[in-house]
Amino acid sequence: MQKPDFGKQGGIVPAIAQDYENGEILMLAYMNEEAFKLTTQSGIVHYFSRSGNRIWKKGETSGNLQELKEMRLDCDSDTLLLKVKQIGAACHEGYRSCFFRILENGDFKIDKTRIMDPASLYGNKN
Amino acid sequence: MQKPDFGKQGGIVPAIAQDYENGEILMLAYMNEEAFKLTTQSGIVHYFSRSGNRIWKKGETSGNLQELKEMRLDCDSDTLLLKVKQIGAACHEGYRSCFFRILENGDFKIDKTRIMDPASLYGNKN
Repeated sequence: MQKPDFGKQGGIVPAIAQDYENGEILMLAYMNEEAFKLTTQSGIVHYFSRSGNRIWKKGETSGNLQELKEMRLDCDSDTLLLKVKQIGAACHEGYRSCFFRILENGDFKIDKTRIMDPASLYGNKN
Repeated sequence: MQKPDFGKQGGIVPAIAQDYENGEILMLAYMNEEAFKLTTQSGIVHYFSRSGNRIWKKGETSGNLQELKEMRLDCDSDTLLLKVKQIGAACHEGYRSCFFRILENGDFKIDKTRIMDPASLYGNKN
């Protein structure tokens, strides 16, 4: 079986999340083998949080889940591409995509509009 | 100035290359600060090769350059998104995109067609 090579980078691989309908890049996070299995088994995207050192079901607190529509593996087997249906905002700052800053004249400037209030995303921890 | 945080991951950040016209994800590679500067100054994408431990001008051997059309930075300042005009194939295996394998029934299977002969890409090292 062809599978991601989790050994190369200390047990994790980067995973790019892309909107399955319009192709917008939403975010990049990391998966370990358990997150990969949980994602493929459940159809709901799970990552591995490097800062928290734990499995992280995307949207577990905010409700902004990612439904997996398609998964791809690159030539070197060390990067995943997830085509997802994104509920609400992918970014914890309330933007649809985490890539809301564009390089202009040597500086990165915000050129997107928030679709949600960040405070509303994490008001009820559960 | 807002800039990538190269310190977080040992001097490099992942950079996603996306076709600026049709949104196809072409590849993921890494940039260090020098590759970032060379890219923004020249408009031609440069990466940092982790295996070769050197700056790598994408297409330097194959001629399959990436012309930078837009650069974006994510919320955590640790991932770049490059919108590029890709000459020829992005993948060293001759596919337009490195993500030529799709997950189907628990296995990753090739569902794309090569657009170039890999042998032709590196026949003349220069």
